[in-house]
Amino acid sequence: MAGTDQTKADVSQGENAPAIILVQPQLGENIGTASRAMLNFGLSDLRLVSPRDGWPNDRARAAASGADVVIDNARLVSRTEEAVADLDYVIATTARTRDMVKPVLTPETAAAKLREVIGSGRRAGIIFGPERTGLTNDDVVLADAVLMVPVNPAFASLNLAQAVLLIGYEWFKAADRTPAEQIDYLQTRPATKEELLGFFEHLEGELDRFGFLKPPEKRPSMVRNLRNLFQRATMTEQEVRTMRGVVAALTRRVPKGEGPEG
Amino acid sequence: MAGTDQTKADVSQGENAPAIILVQPQLGENIGTASRAMLNFGLSDLRLVSPRDGWPNDRARAAASGADVVIDNARLVSRTEEAVADLDYVIATTARTRDMVKPVLTPETAAAKLREVIGSGRRAGIIFGPERTGLTNDDVVLADAVLMVPVNPAFASLNLAQAVLLIGYEWFKAADRTPAEQIDYLQTRPATKEELLGFFEHLEGELDRFGFLKPPEKRPSMVRNLRNLFQRATMTEQEVRTMRGVVAALTRRVPKGEGPEG
Repeated sequence: MAGTDQTKADVSQGENAPAIILVQPQLGENIGTASRAMLNFGLSDLRLVSPRDGWPNDRARAAASGADVVIDNARLVSRTEEAVADLDYVIATTARTRDMVKPVLTPETAAAKLREVIGSGRRAGIIFGPERTGLTNDDVVLADAVLMVPVNPAFASLNLAQAVLLIGYEWFKAADRTPAEQIDYLQTRPATKEELLGFFEHLEGELDRFGFLKPPEKRPSMVRNLRNLFQRATMTEQEVRTMRGVVAALTRRVPKGEGPEG
Repeated sequence: MAGTDQTKADVSQGENAPAIILVQPQLGENIGTASRAMLNFGLSDLRLVSPRDGWPNDRARAAASGADVVIDNARLVSRTEEAVADLDYVIATTARTRDMVKPVLTPETAAAKLREVIGSGRRAGIIFGPERTGLTNDDVVLADAVLMVPVNPAFASLNLAQAVLLIGYEWFKAADRTPAEQIDYLQTRPATKEELLGFFEHLEGELDRFGFLKPPEKRPSMVRNLRNLFQRATMTEQEVRTMRGVVAALTRRVPKGEGPEG
Protein backbone atom coordinates (compact mmCIF):
# COMPACT_ATOMS: atom_id res chain seq x y z
CA MET A 1 0.00 0.00 0.00
CA ALA A 2 1.43 3.37 -0.95
CA GLY A 3 1.61 6.29 1.43
CA THR A 4 2.63 4.61 4.69
CA ASP A 5 4.35 6.80 7.25
CA GLN A 6 7.61 5.00 6.56
CA THR A 7 7.52 5.89 2.87
CA LYS A 8 6.52 9.48 3.53
CA ALA A 9 9.34 10.05 5.97
CA ASP A 10 11.84 9.10 3.25
CA VAL A 11 10.73 11.91 0.99
CA SER A 12 12.66 14.99 1.98
CA GLN A 13 11.65 17.49 -0.68
CA GLY A 14 8.54 18.81 -2.29
CA GLU A 15 6.50 17.56 0.63
CA ASN A 16 3.82 20.17 0.06
CA ALA A 17 3.61 20.11 -3.71
CA PRO A 18 2.91 17.40 -6.27
CA ALA A 19 5.73 15.39 -7.84
CA ILE A 20 6.22 15.72 -11.59
CA ILE A 21 6.93 12.35 -13.18
CA LEU A 22 8.29 12.25 -16.73
CA VAL A 23 8.00 8.79 -18.22
CA GLN A 24 10.68 7.98 -20.81
CA PRO A 25 11.31 11.56 -21.86
CA GLN A 26 13.28 11.62 -25.10
CA LEU A 27 15.00 15.01 -25.28
CA GLY A 28 17.20 16.33 -22.49
CA GLU A 29 16.18 19.80 -23.56
CA ASN A 30 12.56 19.02 -22.74
CA ILE A 31 13.53 17.75 -19.29
CA GLY A 32 15.32 21.07 -18.77
CA THR A 33 12.50 23.31 -19.95
CA ALA A 34 10.04 21.24 -17.92
CA SER A 35 12.26 21.74 -14.84
CA ARG A 36 12.30 25.48 -15.43
CA ALA A 37 8.50 25.51 -15.78
CA MET A 38 8.21 23.52 -12.54
CA LEU A 39 10.30 25.97 -10.56
CA ASN A 40 8.40 28.94 -12.04
CA PHE A 41 5.43 27.62 -10.13
CA GLY A 42 7.11 26.31 -7.00
CA LEU A 43 7.38 22.62 -7.93
CA SER A 44 10.69 20.84 -7.29
CA ASP A 45 10.08 17.10 -6.94
CA LEU A 46 11.04 15.74 -10.38
CA ARG A 47 11.09 11.99 -11.07
CA LEU A 48 12.42 10.55 -14.30
CA VAL A 49 11.41 7.11 -15.51
CA SER A 50 14.10 5.76 -17.87
CA PRO A 51 14.96 8.90 -19.82
CA ARG A 52 16.08 7.89 -23.31
CA ASP A 53 19.47 9.61 -23.20
CA GLY A 54 20.38 8.63 -19.64
CA TRP A 55 20.85 10.77 -16.57
CA PRO A 56 22.43 13.20 -15.71
CA ASN A 57 22.09 15.04 -19.00
CA ASP A 58 23.98 18.24 -19.92
CA ARG A 59 21.35 19.45 -22.34
CA ALA A 60 18.72 19.20 -19.61
CA ARG A 61 20.82 21.32 -17.27
CA ALA A 62 21.47 23.96 -19.94
CA ALA A 63 17.80 24.19 -20.90
CA ALA A 64 16.74 24.50 -17.26
CA SER A 65 18.10 28.09 -17.34
CA GLY A 66 19.02 28.14 -13.68
CA ALA A 67 16.44 25.72 -12.27
CA ASP A 68 19.37 23.64 -11.00
CA VAL A 69 17.66 22.71 -7.76
CA VAL A 70 15.14 20.68 -9.75
CA ILE A 71 17.77 19.01 -11.94
CA ASP A 72 20.07 18.23 -9.00
CA ASN A 73 17.34 16.59 -6.97
CA ALA A 74 15.67 14.68 -9.79
CA ARG A 75 15.13 11.05 -8.88
CA LEU A 76 15.88 8.41 -11.49
CA VAL A 77 13.81 5.22 -11.53
CA SER A 78 13.32 2.49 -14.07
CA ARG A 79 9.57 1.91 -13.92
CA THR A 80 6.51 4.15 -13.51
CA GLU A 81 5.33 1.94 -10.64
CA GLU A 82 8.46 2.87 -8.68
CA ALA A 83 7.96 6.55 -9.37
CA VAL A 84 4.45 6.56 -7.93
CA ALA A 85 4.89 4.02 -5.10
CA ASP A 86 5.04 6.61 -2.28
CA LEU A 87 2.14 8.67 -3.63
CA ASP A 88 -1.49 8.54 -2.55
CA TYR A 89 -3.07 10.26 -5.52
CA VAL A 90 -1.84 10.28 -9.11
CA ILE A 91 -3.06 12.13 -12.18
CA ALA A 92 -2.10 11.02 -15.71
CA THR A 93 -1.88 13.64 -18.45
CA THR A 94 -3.09 12.61 -21.87
CA ALA A 95 -3.81 14.36 -25.13
CA ARG A 96 -6.53 11.96 -26.21
CA THR A 97 -9.27 9.97 -24.51
CA ARG A 98 -8.47 6.40 -23.60
CA ASP A 99 -10.64 3.32 -23.51
CA MET A 100 -10.83 3.59 -19.78
CA VAL A 101 -13.56 4.62 -17.41
CA LYS A 102 -11.78 7.20 -15.28
CA PRO A 103 -12.54 10.79 -14.27
CA VAL A 104 -11.21 13.30 -16.80
CA LEU A 105 -10.20 16.61 -15.21
CA THR A 106 -9.39 20.05 -16.56
CA PRO A 107 -6.08 21.52 -15.29
CA GLU A 108 -8.05 23.79 -12.98
CA THR A 109 -10.02 20.96 -11.39
CA ALA A 110 -6.89 18.84 -11.18
CA ALA A 111 -5.16 21.68 -9.29
CA ALA A 112 -8.06 21.90 -6.85
CA LYS A 113 -7.94 18.12 -6.27
CA LEU A 114 -4.18 18.24 -5.75
CA ARG A 115 -4.55 21.05 -3.21
CA GLU A 116 -7.22 19.01 -1.43
CA VAL A 117 -5.13 15.83 -1.33
CA ILE A 118 -1.93 17.57 -0.28
CA GLY A 119 -3.80 19.81 2.15
CA SER A 120 -4.98 16.70 3.98
CA GLY A 121 -1.41 15.45 4.39
CA ARG A 122 -1.39 12.97 1.53
CA ARG A 123 1.11 12.94 -1.33
CA ALA A 124 0.33 13.45 -5.00
CA GLY A 125 1.97 13.40 -8.40
CA ILE A 126 1.32 13.99 -12.07
CA ILE A 127 2.68 11.69 -14.78
CA PHE A 128 3.58 12.80 -18.32
CA GLY A 129 4.34 10.43 -21.18
CA PRO A 130 7.12 10.46 -23.81
CA GLU A 131 7.00 13.35 -26.29
CA ARG A 132 5.74 11.50 -29.36
CA THR A 133 3.58 8.76 -28.02
CA GLY A 134 2.23 9.91 -24.67
CA LEU A 135 1.60 7.54 -21.77
CA THR A 136 0.87 3.88 -22.41
CA ASN A 137 -2.45 2.58 -21.18
CA ASP A 138 -0.56 0.56 -18.58
CA ASP A 139 0.75 3.81 -17.10
CA VAL A 140 -2.61 5.57 -17.31
CA VAL A 141 -4.18 2.70 -15.35
CA LEU A 142 -1.94 3.58 -12.38
CA ALA A 143 -3.62 6.97 -12.06
CA ASP A 144 -6.68 7.99 -10.09
CA ALA A 145 -7.73 10.48 -12.75
CA VAL A 146 -6.81 11.71 -16.19
CA LEU A 147 -6.00 15.32 -17.06
CA MET A 148 -6.58 16.80 -20.50
CA VAL A 149 -5.68 20.39 -21.35
CA PRO A 150 -8.43 22.06 -23.40
CA VAL A 151 -6.80 23.21 -26.66
CA ASN A 152 -7.72 24.23 -30.18
CA PRO A 153 -8.79 20.87 -31.66
CA ALA A 154 -7.39 21.93 -35.04
CA PHE A 155 -3.89 22.39 -33.57
CA ALA A 156 -3.64 20.45 -30.36
CA SER A 157 0.05 19.53 -30.01
CA LEU A 158 1.43 20.89 -26.74
CA ASN A 159 5.05 20.13 -26.02
CA LEU A 160 6.09 18.46 -22.78
CA ALA A 161 7.33 21.60 -21.02
CA GLN A 162 4.22 23.51 -22.05
CA ALA A 163 1.99 20.85 -20.51
CA VAL A 164 4.06 20.96 -17.30
CA LEU A 165 3.88 24.78 -17.39
CA LEU A 166 0.09 24.94 -17.66
CA ILE A 167 -0.44 22.45 -14.87
CA GLY A 168 2.16 24.17 -12.66
CA TYR A 169 0.45 27.46 -13.36
CA GLU A 170 -2.94 26.15 -12.28
CA TRP A 171 -1.38 24.55 -9.20
CA PHE A 172 0.24 27.85 -8.23
CA LYS A 173 -2.83 29.88 -9.06
CA ALA A 174 -5.03 27.70 -6.85
CA ALA A 175 -3.24 29.10 -3.78
CA ASP A 176 -2.23 32.48 -5.17
CA ARG A 177 -3.74 35.49 -3.49
CA THR A 178 -2.96 38.09 -6.18
CA PRO A 179 -6.06 40.28 -6.55
CA ALA A 180 -7.77 39.81 -9.92
CA GLU A 181 -7.31 43.49 -10.62
CA GLN A 182 -5.39 46.11 -8.71
CA ILE A 183 -3.90 49.54 -9.11
CA ASP A 184 -0.59 50.35 -7.49
CA TYR A 185 -0.73 53.97 -6.35
CA LEU A 186 3.07 54.09 -5.91
CA GLN A 187 4.10 57.25 -3.98
CA THR A 188 0.65 58.73 -4.47
CA ARG A 189 -2.99 57.93 -3.69
CA PRO A 190 -6.36 58.43 -5.36
CA ALA A 191 -7.42 62.08 -5.20
CA THR A 192 -10.08 62.95 -2.66
CA LYS A 193 -13.28 64.45 -3.98
CA GLU A 194 -12.29 67.72 -2.32
CA GLU A 195 -9.03 67.88 -4.30
CA LEU A 196 -10.90 66.98 -7.46
CA LEU A 197 -13.49 69.69 -6.87
CA GLY A 198 -10.71 72.20 -6.18
CA PHE A 199 -9.26 71.38 -9.58
CA PHE A 200 -12.67 71.57 -11.30
CA GLU A 201 -13.31 74.99 -9.84
CA HIS A 202 -9.84 76.20 -10.74
CA LEU A 203 -10.27 75.01 -14.32
CA GLU A 204 -13.79 76.32 -14.69
CA GLY A 205 -12.81 79.69 -13.16
CA GLU A 206 -10.08 80.10 -15.74
CA LEU A 207 -12.37 78.96 -18.56
CA ASP A 208 -14.91 81.55 -17.43
CA ARG A 209 -12.18 84.18 -17.36
CA PHE A 210 -11.17 83.28 -20.95
CA GLY A 211 -14.76 83.26 -22.13
CA PHE A 212 -14.81 79.54 -23.03
CA LEU A 213 -17.96 78.53 -21.09
CA LYS A 214 -20.43 80.46 -23.22
CA PRO A 215 -23.30 81.08 -23.87
CA PRO A 216 -24.46 80.96 -20.22
CA GLU A 217 -27.33 78.54 -20.91
CA LYS A 218 -24.79 76.01 -22.25
CA ARG A 219 -22.42 76.41 -19.28
CA PRO A 220 -24.00 73.73 -17.01
CA SER A 221 -23.75 70.96 -19.61
CA MET A 222 -20.23 72.00 -20.70
CA VAL A 223 -19.10 71.86 -17.07
CA ARG A 224 -20.75 68.49 -16.59
CA ASN A 225 -19.02 67.05 -19.64
CA LEU A 226 -15.61 68.28 -18.53
CA ARG A 227 -16.06 67.06 -14.98
CA ASN A 228 -17.23 63.71 -16.21
CA LEU A 229 -14.16 63.24 -18.37
CA PHE A 230 -11.78 63.86 -15.46
CA GLN A 231 -13.94 61.87 -13.08
CA ARG A 232 -13.70 58.85 -15.35
CA ALA A 233 -9.92 58.97 -15.27
CA THR A 234 -9.97 58.27 -11.48
CA MET A 235 -7.09 60.68 -11.01
CA THR A 236 -4.47 60.50 -8.30
CA GLU A 237 -3.65 63.35 -5.94
CA GLN A 238 -0.42 63.80 -7.89
CA GLU A 239 -2.27 64.01 -11.20
CA VAL A 240 -4.66 66.61 -9.81
CA ARG A 241 -1.67 68.74 -8.83
CA THR A 242 -0.16 68.22 -12.28
CA MET A 243 -3.38 69.29 -13.97
CA ARG A 244 -3.61 72.40 -11.79
CA GLY A 245 -0.06 73.18 -12.91
CA VAL A 246 -1.10 72.65 -16.52
CA VAL A 247 -4.02 75.05 -16.14
CA ALA A 248 -1.80 77.60 -14.38
CA ALA A 249 0.85 77.35 -17.12
CA LEU A 250 -1.65 77.68 -19.97
CA THR A 251 -3.24 80.75 -18.41
CA ARG A 252 -0.04 82.72 -17.98
CA ARG A 253 -0.42 85.97 -19.83
CA VAL A 254 2.72 85.32 -21.90
CA PRO A 255 4.13 81.89 -22.79
CA LYS A 256 7.25 80.98 -20.80
CA GLY A 257 10.42 82.25 -22.50
CA GLU A 258 8.57 84.68 -24.71
CA GLY A 259 8.33 87.63 -22.34
CA PRO A 260 9.40 89.21 -19.09
CA GLU A 261 7.21 86.81 -17.07
CA GLY A 262 8.98 83.70 -18.47
CA MET B 1 -9.10 57.38 -33.21
CA ALA B 2 -8.56 53.64 -33.40
CA GLY B 3 -11.33 51.23 -34.17
CA THR B 4 -13.24 53.03 -36.91
CA ASP B 5 -15.25 50.87 -39.25
CA GLN B 6 -12.78 51.61 -42.01
CA THR B 7 -9.87 50.25 -40.02
CA LYS B 8 -11.77 47.22 -38.86
CA ALA B 9 -12.83 46.28 -42.35
CA ASP B 10 -9.17 46.08 -43.34
CA VAL B 11 -8.44 43.40 -40.78
CA SER B 12 -9.24 40.11 -42.40
CA GLN B 13 -8.12 37.61 -39.77
CA GLY B 14 -8.44 37.04 -36.07
CA GLU B 15 -11.47 39.32 -35.96
CA ASN B 16 -12.81 37.52 -32.92
CA ALA B 17 -9.63 37.02 -30.95
CA PRO B 18 -6.97 39.36 -29.59
CA ALA B 19 -3.87 40.24 -31.61
CA ILE B 20 -0.52 39.19 -30.19
CA ILE B 21 2.09 41.91 -30.62
CA LEU B 22 5.75 41.04 -30.11
CA VAL B 23 7.87 44.16 -29.73
CA GLN B 24 11.46 43.77 -30.96
CA PRO B 25 11.65 40.03 -30.40
CA GLN B 26 15.27 38.88 -30.54
CA LEU B 27 15.20 35.18 -31.38
CA GLY B 28 13.37 33.79 -34.38
CA GLU B 29 12.91 30.60 -32.42
CA ASN B 30 10.87 32.47 -29.81
CA ILE B 31 8.66 33.97 -32.50
CA GLY B 32 8.06 30.43 -33.74
CA THR B 33 7.26 28.89 -30.37
CA ALA B 34 5.03 31.85 -29.55
CA SER B 35 3.19 31.28 -32.87
CA ARG B 36 2.69 27.65 -31.99
CA ALA B 37 1.37 28.59 -28.54
CA MET B 38 -1.01 31.09 -30.17
CA LEU B 39 -2.50 28.53 -32.51
CA ASN B 40 -2.84 26.00 -29.67
CA PHE B 41 -5.39 28.37 -28.23
CA GLY B 42 -7.02 29.68 -31.38
CA LEU B 43 -5.08 32.94 -31.81
CA SER B 44 -3.74 33.80 -35.25
CA ASP B 45 -3.27 37.59 -35.51
CA LEU B 46 0.47 38.05 -34.93
CA ARG B 47 2.12 41.46 -35.28
CA LEU B 48 5.88 41.92 -35.13
CA VAL B 49 7.44 45.25 -34.25
CA SER B 50 10.99 45.42 -35.67
CA PRO B 51 12.15 41.88 -34.96
CA ARG B 52 15.94 41.95 -34.43
CA ASP B 53 16.80 39.41 -37.13
CA GLY B 54 14.37 40.67 -39.76
CA TRP B 55 11.34 39.02 -41.29
CA PRO B 56 10.58 36.44 -42.65
CA ASN B 57 12.77 34.24 -40.48
CA ASP B 58 13.48 30.55 -41.15
CA ARG B 59 14.13 29.72 -37.52
CA ALA B 60 10.73 31.12 -36.60
CA ARG B 61 9.03 28.92 -39.17
CA ALA B 62 10.87 25.80 -38.02
CA ALA B 63 10.09 26.44 -34.35
CA ALA B 64 6.41 27.03 -35.11
CA SER B 65 6.07 23.26 -35.65
CA GLY B 66 3.31 23.58 -38.20
CA ALA B 67 1.63 26.79 -37.04
CA ASP B 68 2.37 28.17 -40.52
CA VAL B 69 -0.89 30.05 -40.73
CA VAL B 70 0.31 32.34 -37.96
CA ILE B 71 3.78 32.84 -39.45
CA ASP B 72 2.43 33.43 -42.98
CA ASN B 73 -0.03 36.08 -41.86
CA ALA B 74 2.22 37.88 -39.39
CA ARG B 75 2.20 41.62 -39.97
CA LEU B 76 5.50 43.47 -39.81
CA VAL B 77 5.55 47.06 -38.52
CA SER B 78 8.29 49.35 -37.35
CA ARG B 79 6.70 50.95 -34.29
CA THR B 80 4.46 49.75 -31.47
CA GLU B 81 2.08 52.64 -32.18
CA GLU B 82 1.46 51.22 -35.67
CA ALA B 83 0.83 47.76 -34.29
CA VAL B 84 -1.91 48.95 -31.94
CA ALA B 85 -3.46 51.69 -34.11
CA ASP B 86 -6.53 49.67 -35.14
CA LEU B 87 -7.18 48.29 -31.66
CA ASP B 88 -9.62 49.58 -29.07
CA TYR B 89 -8.20 47.90 -25.99
CA VAL B 90 -4.59 46.96 -25.32
CA ILE B 91 -2.96 45.03 -22.50
CA ALA B 92 0.79 45.22 -21.83
CA THR B 93 2.53 42.23 -20.27
CA THR B 94 5.27 42.98 -17.77
CA ALA B 95 7.29 40.96 -15.30
CA ARG B 96 7.69 43.81 -12.85
CA THR B 97 5.62 46.72 -11.63
CA ARG B 98 6.15 50.04 -13.35
CA ASP B 99 6.01 53.58 -12.02
CA MET B 100 2.63 53.99 -13.60
CA VAL B 101 -0.85 54.15 -12.22
CA LYS B 102 -2.64 51.58 -14.32
CA PRO B 103 -4.82 48.55 -13.55
CA VAL B 104 -2.76 45.38 -13.07
CA LEU B 105 -4.61 42.23 -14.14
CA THR B 106 -4.05 38.52 -13.63
CA PRO B 107 -4.13 36.44 -16.84
CA GLU B 108 -7.58 35.20 -15.86
CA THR B 109 -9.02 38.69 -15.39
CA ALA B 110 -7.30 39.87 -18.54
CA ALA B 111 -8.97 37.04 -20.46
CA ALA B 112 -12.36 38.03 -19.09
CA LYS B 113 -11.76 41.67 -20.10
CA LEU B 114 -10.66 40.62 -23.57
CA ARG B 115 -13.78 38.47 -24.00
CA GLU B 116 -15.89 41.41 -22.89
CA VAL B 117 -14.22 43.89 -25.25
CA ILE B 118 -14.23 41.54 -28.24
CA GLY B 119 -17.74 40.34 -27.42
CA SER B 120 -18.96 43.90 -27.79
CA GLY B 121 -17.46 44.17 -31.26
CA ARG B 122 -14.30 46.05 -30.36
CA ARG B 123 -10.77 44.91 -31.15
CA ALA B 124 -8.08 44.04 -28.63
CA GLY B 125 -4.43 43.07 -28.43
CA ILE B 126 -1.70 42.09 -26.01
CA ILE B 127 1.84 43.44 -26.29
CA PHE B 128 4.96 41.56 -25.19
CA GLY B 129 8.42 43.10 -24.88
CA PRO B 130 11.84 41.88 -26.03
CA GLU B 131 13.15 38.76 -24.26
CA ARG B 132 15.76 40.34 -22.01
CA THR B 133 14.44 43.77 -21.24
CA GLY B 134 10.67 43.62 -21.48
CA LEU B 135 8.55 46.50 -22.71
CA THR B 136 9.79 50.07 -22.39
CA ASN B 137 7.67 52.41 -20.32
CA ASP B 138 6.79 54.23 -23.55
CA ASP B 139 5.20 51.05 -24.83
CA VAL B 140 3.45 50.27 -21.54
CA VAL B 141 1.88 53.74 -21.60
CA LEU B 142 0.04 52.77 -24.80
CA ALA B 143 -1.89 50.09 -22.94
CA ASP B 144 -5.17 50.28 -21.07
CA ALA B 145 -4.01 47.77 -18.47
CA VAL B 146 -0.98 45.79 -17.42
CA LEU B 147 -0.89 42.01 -17.10
CA MET B 148 1.44 40.18 -14.72
CA VAL B 149 1.56 36.39 -14.48
CA PRO B 150 1.71 35.22 -10.86
CA VAL B 151 4.89 33.14 -10.53
CA ASN B 152 7.27 31.86 -7.87
CA PRO B 153 9.00 35.09 -6.80
CA ALA B 154 12.23 33.14 -6.24
CA PHE B 155 12.31 31.98 -9.88
CA ALA B 156 10.19 34.28 -11.94
CA SER B 157 11.70 34.19 -15.44
CA LEU B 158 9.09 33.08 -17.98
CA ASN B 159 10.21 32.94 -21.58
CA LEU B 160 8.32 34.76 -24.30
CA ALA B 161 6.47 31.74 -25.69
CA GLN B 162 5.51 30.60 -22.20
CA ALA B 163 3.97 33.99 -21.44
CA VAL B 164 2.05 33.85 -24.73
CA LEU B 165 1.00 30.27 -23.91
CA LEU B 166 -0.41 31.11 -20.48
CA ILE B 167 -2.37 34.07 -21.76
CA GLY B 168 -3.63 32.11 -24.76
CA TYR B 169 -4.67 29.33 -22.41
CA GLU B 170 -6.68 31.70 -20.22
CA TRP B 171 -8.24 33.29 -23.31
CA PHE B 172 -9.29 29.88 -24.62
CA LYS B 173 -10.45 28.65 -21.22
CA ALA B 174 -12.68 31.68 -20.75
CA ALA B 175 -14.93 30.36 -23.52
CA ASP B 176 -14.25 26.66 -23.16
CA ARG B 177 -17.18 24.48 -22.18
CA THR B 178 -15.24 21.38 -21.11
CA PRO B 179 -16.83 20.11 -17.90
CA ALA B 180 -14.53 20.46 -14.88
CA GLU B 181 -14.74 16.72 -14.33
CA GLN B 182 -16.30 14.03 -16.46
CA ILE B 183 -16.29 10.32 -16.98
CA ASP B 184 -16.52 8.94 -20.48
CA TYR B 185 -18.55 5.75 -20.32
CA LEU B 186 -17.35 4.70 -23.80
CA GLN B 187 -19.45 1.76 -25.08
CA THR B 188 -20.89 1.22 -21.63
CA ARG B 189 -22.87 3.06 -18.94
CA PRO B 190 -22.96 3.19 -15.14
CA ALA B 191 -24.49 0.01 -13.72
CA THR B 192 -28.02 0.28 -12.42
CA LYS B 193 -28.61 -0.53 -8.76
CA GLU B 194 -30.49 -3.63 -9.89
CA GLU B 195 -27.44 -4.93 -11.79
CA LEU B 196 -25.23 -4.12 -8.84
CA LEU B 197 -27.53 -5.94 -6.44
CA GLY B 198 -27.62 -8.92 -8.78
CA PHE B 199 -23.84 -9.07 -8.60
CA PHE B 200 -23.80 -8.66 -4.81
CA GLU B 201 -26.23 -11.52 -4.39
CA HIS B 202 -24.31 -13.70 -6.82
CA LEU B 203 -21.05 -13.03 -4.97
CA GLU B 204 -22.54 -13.44 -1.52
CA GLY B 205 -24.33 -16.64 -2.55
CA GLU B 206 -21.04 -18.16 -3.69
CA LEU B 207 -19.24 -16.93 -0.57
CA ASP B 208 -21.93 -18.57 1.54
CA ARG B 209 -21.54 -21.75 -0.45
CA PHE B 210 -17.76 -21.75 0.17
CA GLY B 211 -18.21 -20.98 3.85
CA PHE B 212 -16.50 -17.58 3.73
CA LEU B 213 -19.21 -15.48 5.40
CA LYS B 214 -18.89 -17.05 8.85
CA PRO B 215 -19.67 -16.98 11.71
CA PRO B 216 -23.32 -16.01 11.07
CA GLU B 217 -23.27 -13.07 13.50
CA LYS B 218 -20.40 -11.53 11.49
CA ARG B 219 -22.13 -12.04 8.14
CA PRO B 220 -24.05 -8.72 8.04
CA SER B 221 -20.97 -6.57 8.59
CA MET B 222 -18.85 -8.64 6.21
CA VAL B 223 -21.50 -8.23 3.52
CA ARG B 224 -21.75 -4.50 4.21
CA ASN B 225 -18.02 -4.05 3.86
CA LEU B 226 -17.88 -5.92 0.58
CA ARG B 227 -20.87 -4.08 -0.85
CA ASN B 228 -19.41 -0.79 0.22
CA LEU B 229 -16.13 -1.45 -1.55
CA PHE B 230 -17.84 -2.20 -4.87
CA GLN B 231 -20.31 0.61 -4.39
CA ARG B 232 -17.45 3.09 -4.02
CA ALA B 233 -15.99 1.99 -7.34
CA THR B 234 -19.11 3.29 -9.17
CA MET B 235 -18.95 0.32 -11.52
CA THR B 236 -20.14 0.25 -15.09
CA GLU B 237 -22.61 -2.28 -16.44
CA GLN B 238 -19.67 -3.86 -18.28
CA GLU B 239 -17.61 -4.14 -15.10
CA VAL B 240 -20.50 -5.76 -13.25
CA ARG B 241 -20.66 -8.40 -15.98
CA THR B 242 -16.89 -8.85 -15.79
CA MET B 243 -17.04 -9.32 -12.02
CA ARG B 244 -19.81 -11.87 -12.34
CA GLY B 245 -17.58 -13.69 -14.81
CA VAL B 246 -14.72 -13.50 -12.30
CA VAL B 247 -16.89 -15.00 -9.57
CA ALA B 248 -18.14 -17.71 -11.92
CA ALA B 249 -14.59 -18.58 -13.00
CA LEU B 250 -13.23 -18.72 -9.46
CA THR B 251 -16.04 -21.00 -8.35
CA ARG B 252 -15.58 -23.60 -11.07
CA ARG B 253 -14.94 -26.94 -9.43
CA VAL B 254 -11.67 -27.44 -11.33
CA PRO B 255 -9.41 -24.66 -12.66
CA LYS B 256 -9.61 -24.28 -16.41
CA GLY B 257 -7.15 -26.48 -18.22
CA GLU B 258 -6.62 -28.73 -15.22
CA GLY B 259 -9.51 -31.12 -15.70
CA PRO B 260 -12.31 -32.36 -17.95
CA GLU B 261 -14.36 -29.17 -17.33
CA GLY B 262 -11.53 -26.91 -18.66
